[in-house]
Formats: sequence, C-alpha cells, structure tokens
Amino acid sequence: MATVKLLTDAEANAVPAVKDVFDDIRATRKSDFINNFWRGLANDPALLRRSWDGLKAVMAVEGTLDPLVREMIYIAVSSANGCAYCVHSHTAAAKARGMTEAQHAELLAVIGLAGQTNHLATAMQIPVDAEFDIR
Amino acid sequence: MATVKLLTDAEANAVPAVKDVFDDIRATRKSDFINNFWRGLANDPALLRRSWDGLKAVMAVEGTLDPLVREMIYIAVSSANGCAYCVHSHTAAAKARGMTEAQHAELLAVIGLAGQTNHLATAMQIPVDAEFDIR
Amino acid sequence: MATVKLLTDAEANAVPAVKDVFDDIRATRKSDFINNFWRGLANDPALLRRSWDGLKAVMAVEGTLDPLVREMIYIAVSSANGCAYCVHSHTAAAKARGMTEAQHAELLAVIGLAGQTNHLATAMQIPVDAEFDIR
Amino acid sequence: MATVKLLTDAEANAVPAVKDVFDDIRATRKSDFINNFWRGLANDPALLRRSWDGLKAVMAVEGTLDPLVREMIYIAVSSANGCAYCVHSHTAAAKARGMTEAQHAELLAVIGLAGQTNHLATAMQIPVDAEFDIR
Amino acid sequence: MATVKLLTDAEANAVPAVKDVFDDIRATRKSDFINNFWRGLANDPALLRRSWDGLKAVMAVEGTLDPLVREMIYIAVSSANGCAYCVHSHTAAAKARGMTEAQHAELLAVIGLAGQTNHLATAMQIPVDAEFDIR
Amino acid sequence: MATVKLLTDAEANAVPAVKDVFDDIRATRKSDFINNFWRGLANDPALLRRSWDGLKAVMAVEGTLDPLVREMIYIAVSSANGCAYCVHSHTAAAKARGMTEAQHAELLAVIGLAGQTNHLATAMQIPVDAEFDIR
Repeated sequence: MATVKLLTDAEANAVPAVKDVFDDIRATRKSDFINNFWRGLANDPALLRRSWDGLKAVMAVEGTLDPLVREMIYIAVSSANGCAYCVHSHTAAAKARGMTEAQHAELLAVIGLAGQTNHLATAMQIPVDAEFDIR
Repeated sequence: MATVKLLTDAEANAVPAVKDVFDDIRATRKSDFINNFWRGLANDPALLRRSWDGLKAVMAVEGTLDPLVREMIYIAVSSANGCAYCVHSHTAAAKARGMTEAQHAELLAVIGLAGQTNHLATAMQIPVDAEFDIR
Repeated sequence: MATVKLLTDAEANAVPAVKDVFDDIRATRKSDFINNFWRGLANDPALLRRSWDGLKAVMAVEGTLDPLVREMIYIAVSSANGCAYCVHSHTAAAKARGMTEAQHAELLAVIGLAGQTNHLATAMQIPVDAEFDIR
Repeated sequence: MATVKLLTDAEANAVPAVKDVFDDIRATRKSDFINNFWRGLANDPALLRRSWDGLKAVMAVEGTLDPLVREMIYIAVSSANGCAYCVHSHTAAAKARGMTEAQHAELLAVIGLAGQTNHLATAMQIPVDAEFDIR
Repeated sequence: MATVKLLTDAEANAVPAVKDVFDDIRATRKSDFINNFWRGLANDPALLRRSWDGLKAVMAVEGTLDPLVREMIYIAVSSANGCAYCVHSHTAAAKARGMTEAQHAELLAVIGLAGQTNHLATAMQIPVDAEFDIR
Repeated sequence: MATVKLLTDAEANAVPAVKDVFDDIRATRKSDFINNFWRGLANDPALLRRSWDGLKAVMAVEGTLDPLVREMIYIAVSSANGCAYCVHSHTAAAKARGMTEAQHAELLAVIGLAGQTNHLATAMQIPVDAEFDIR
C-alpha cells in the first residue's frame, strides 16, 4: 500500500496537466507503460511536471556519460539510501538499456566495497588528506 | 582527529604485515603516497590486508566497467552515505583517472536526482511494479 | 514477520506494567486501537514505558508547534531514514489530524527537494558559510 | 575544501547563464549574499538553473504550509541525512524567518524522537498495520 | 522479488567455484541451509568467494569479542542502515547463538537511544569536545 | 559552530532545571566534565532531562549486556548514521571503559563487513528467507 493514491489512466486523463506529462513519458520512452512512481506523483500535477522534467534533463539527454552509466549511478545511490522501489525500477531500466550480467556483478561489487569502506572511514573518523585537494 | 592512530611510515615499516601492504599499495598505484585511510586500518594488519585486497579485486582489475565509471559509482555511494572522507578520496581518484568537469557535473546531477526521487518514492511508499521483475 | 513477538491484548493484559501503558495509549488517543509498534515494544515493559512517555511528551502536549506540523516533521525524518513502518503510521496520524491533500503534496515536495540538495551539498563537500553562524 | 570550485562573483558574472541565476537569487532573497552551495553548482549552469528553479518552486511560493514550517521540514530531512551544510543553511534560514528558540527546541525534540522510533521499528521489523491504509 | 537470480542447489552445483563456497558454508555452519543472500551473490563466483571469506574472517573466528556480541553489532549497523534482510538474518543468527529476550531488549534499547542522540547531535551540529581525543 | 548555543557552567547554573541535570551527570560519571552534547540540549531543560534520563536508563544501569558492549553497539549505530560527534564521544567512552585495541579493531571489522553486506543485500533486493522467522 502507498500513502498516496496511484492514479489510474482514467483519473490521469481527467486532469489535463497530468495527461500532458503522462503523454510525454509515453512518447519519450516509446512505451505505453507508466510506472507507479508517476501515478503517485500525479496527485500534484506541478510536482509531477517538475519531477519528470528534472528526470528527463538528467537521464534522457545526450551527455558525456553513457545512459547506462547514469542508470548504474542511480542504482548505487538508491542502494545506499535503501530505496527498494528505486533499486527495482532503475535495475530494470539498466537491464532494458543492455546492462549485462557481468556489468551488474561489477556494479554490485563496487556498491558493496564502497559500503564497507564508507563505514570504516566513518568509524575511524579519518581526516581528509591534504593531497585530495586537487580542484 | 581520528578515533585510531594513523601510522607513520616508520611505524608501518616496523610491522612486516603492514609494510607488505603499504609496499603493494605503492607498487599498484605507482606512487609513494599512502592516504590516511590505510594508515588508520594499519592498526589491524589483517583488516588492512583484507580491505586492500578487496579494493584491488574490485577497483584495480580489468573488467567490463571502465575504471573511471567504477570511481563514479563509488562517489555516488559515498555521497548517499554522507562519508566526507570517501567523497574526497574518490573524487580525487576520479580526477586522477581523467574525469572531466562535464562528467563530474553529470555525475552530480544524477546523484542529486536520485536523492530526490529516492526520498519521494519512500515518502509515498510506492509499491514495486510487477513489470520490473525482469530477471 | 517481525524479529520480536507482537503481544496480543490477552498477553498485554497479563503483564500489569504493559497493561498500564496500553491503557494510557487508549485513553490518550481516545481509541481502542493499539498499533503493532507498541505490541513489539511490549516485550520489554520498561522500554515500552520510556518510549511511550517520550512520545507523549513530544507529540501529545501543548507547545508552540501545531500537532500536525510535528507529524509532518516526523514523516520527513522517517522518509529520509527509509523507515516504511514510520512513514505509514505517521502519515496516517497526520491524515487523522486533518492533513489535506495539498499539505501532503507540499510536504512531499519539500522532502524530495531536501533529499536532492542534501545529496548535492554532500557530493560537492560545500564548506559552511560563515554567515550561517547566527546563534 | 570542496570537490568543486566555488565561483567568485567575478567568475559568475563572466557566464551569463550563471549571472542570471545569481541575479534572481539576490532579487528573490532581497540580499546580496550568495551562499557557497550555489557557487558550487555554478560550475554547471544548467544544474544551477534547475536546482534554483526547483527550490524557488517549493520554498519561495505561496502555499498551504507556512514558509517557516517548510524550513523546519527541510532541517528534519537534512538532520536525518547527516548533511552538515544543509542543517546549517536551513537552520539559519528558519531563524531568519522568525523561528523562536521554543520552536527550534520542539523541532529538535521531534527529530530526536523520530530518530529513536525509526531505529526501533526497523530493528523490530514491525509489520505495517492494516489500519494505516486510509487513502 | 530480487534484482538477481537466486541460484538453486542444482544451478550452484553446476559451477565448481560456487559449489566450493556453498560446501564451505555448509561445513562451517554445520547446516545444509544456504540462505538467499549467498544464492544471489552466486551469480558472480568471485564476489561470492570474497564475501564469504570476508564474513568468515570477521564472524567465524576466535577473537576478543564474543561471537554473539559481533552478531549484535551487526544487527545494530543493519538497523541503522534500514537493511530488512540483514536485520532478519542476523537476528536469527543471534538467537541461534543464544541471545536471550533480555539481551535482545537491551540491544533494541541501545539502538533506539543511539538513533535518537545521533539525530539530536547532528541537528544541533555539536562540535567534538577536545577531551574525546584520547588515542 | 553549532546551530544552538552551548551553555557555559555559569549559564547552566542559572537555570535550576539545567543545574539539576548537570549535577546528576557529574555525580553519575564521577567527573566534572560535561560534554558539548548536554550543553546544547540545555537550551531546553525538559529535552535535556528526558535525554539524560533515557541515556542513564539504557547505558548506566545493571543489565545483561556488559556496559562496554553497549558502548560498542552505540558506536556501530553512530558509524552507520554518519554521526561524527557520536562516533567520537562513544569511542572515547568505550576506551574509558577499557576497550582494548584488539576489541576496537574487531568492532571496526564487523562495522565494515555489515556495511558491505547491507549494501549488497539491498542492491540485490534479496527476499527474506522463511527460515529466519524463529520468534
């Protein structure tokens, strides 16, 4: 269960500002599927619009990072934050973008390693080396 | 200040099991610099050895992910975990591996976006879509 | 499944120190419903008592913050911590206290925004401005 | 030290897209002060613009929640996430908006309480009560 | 559902490097039961091997801390990180090692208290006392 | 800098409800030292009292867990939460209670291991084994 209503297509279509975003999601993704995250955000058309525009600007444009790399970074943050929904949705997105089992395994290895060393560095309260200041 | 002693080179050299790891770090990195994280772990030679071997196995070997990509994933996890030391050390490592300002900016954008949607998905307790089950 | 037993009313009534707290919860909330959180804590009557007294002292007294505002702050912390149970229970409490859909939507927007900027500030390791020192 | 350069006013003014945002920050806040967070984001004018527009849309508009309440929710999330910069900047903002010592103390009490019960609920893995499903 | 396949015994036995680890888990634990965590890691035999060797080196050897104490520390970290799987698996492990209800209750009390004071110290941004520097 | 004033002894002594708690802290700890955490909480005498009473009830009483073990559990939670102040204060407390370097090293090893496996279990979204349900 969610703490908000998940809008059905009928409910979404009844609100033009929501329908516009859903139409754009479908056109951008070339798929009729709208996942629950957007159906929850749709309770607030302005938040839905801002969130979708933000996601498009970061994830769905040309850039210097490969789109698959961006999805893997997303999974990394979501794992550290313990967001089950986000781990699932972005792992599915990464697989849809061609993430191989070998790439997934390496991603998991880095996530686990970082989790370990993050905890160790924090527990030891290691001071930052002056050498790292290389702006 | 740290909660453990940070071993100097003299102290490290006095313990063969520590010296071995420090030698390997220097040889692997082709640099004389040993950062504070390893100097803190050196209080426990076995933990130092396991941590370094783990890091080498994940970060310093050939694989399907570019080493720079692995560093960026590391930064992502470290940012979500709020580990200041790790953010600094791995951002320095990523820059040393050639991360451009444009790549850094895109990395930051994805980290920020994931932080936002992670919080929204959790606050709404969005149920995972069945469509994400694509093993 | 929980990692502790969730005490039934019969089991709770059999322990006077637990029954006293459950009676107080029911009287304070003017409702017969005791949620699972207290049924789990009831395995340790002293922890149950301290936790309930603490919650009453913070959430159920007159103060300068509106009780609904306190519930929204609670939801904010619980979302950041990824505590599904707490997000659910305090969203229900906020709705019972009259949180409107518009207020809920604004709460979600702030939580998402804070999640985003928290991650950005940490990833950039921005130093605190001296101007913020306004005690 | 930060992991990015913090742009000076001279550097910001040299980039029209950055200058535009800095001008808008100053006009919106009726203050010449630009805090370090925006100076760091300014390395990427597009990210700076999106972040500022997002913040304005959530924090600086009329709504159903009092602006001070929004700042307190921000502090709550930032505390749970351990973002020192954000705790400082938004506590300063809340004080600038008139947060009294009594309100600050109540905010702290709720944050501490939520931290406690979040940890207890997670450690006990309490299942969500069906009664909380009140959409 | 998981984001990786959980290997069955038949699938595990078909990969010698996986079978070796599973055999070692069974021998070390004197039990035929292999929990899902290892079945997920088994997709990457090298990661499985490193993870199991790391766990054995920390949890299954003689040391100065009682094995039950180590399990309780594990539960504490897992609760703070919101890892439902890990809270469950290590609470089960602690009970198998003889954790009494009284010990479990005290563990929960410390976890809750630490959660509370962690949030308070962070929200107040308390500076570290010089007196704590006792290396 | 903190977001609240840290009360001096003179300021604390001027408020009887604060002086009472400070006296009790000194008597309980058999030390004149009052660390900054309590000086920050002292802005709200009621929150100070509740926090100190809670800490005494959990940490400073006879129980089934050794006081040093409780301090180590506290450090574990604080490390996972990234609370620098709490890691420092409770590591100092643990050392004052006799934590040896070997015990500290084992504590760090468990914290690091849990951090690693927490991240792996979350990134793989491993379902909880039915076998763990052993209440």
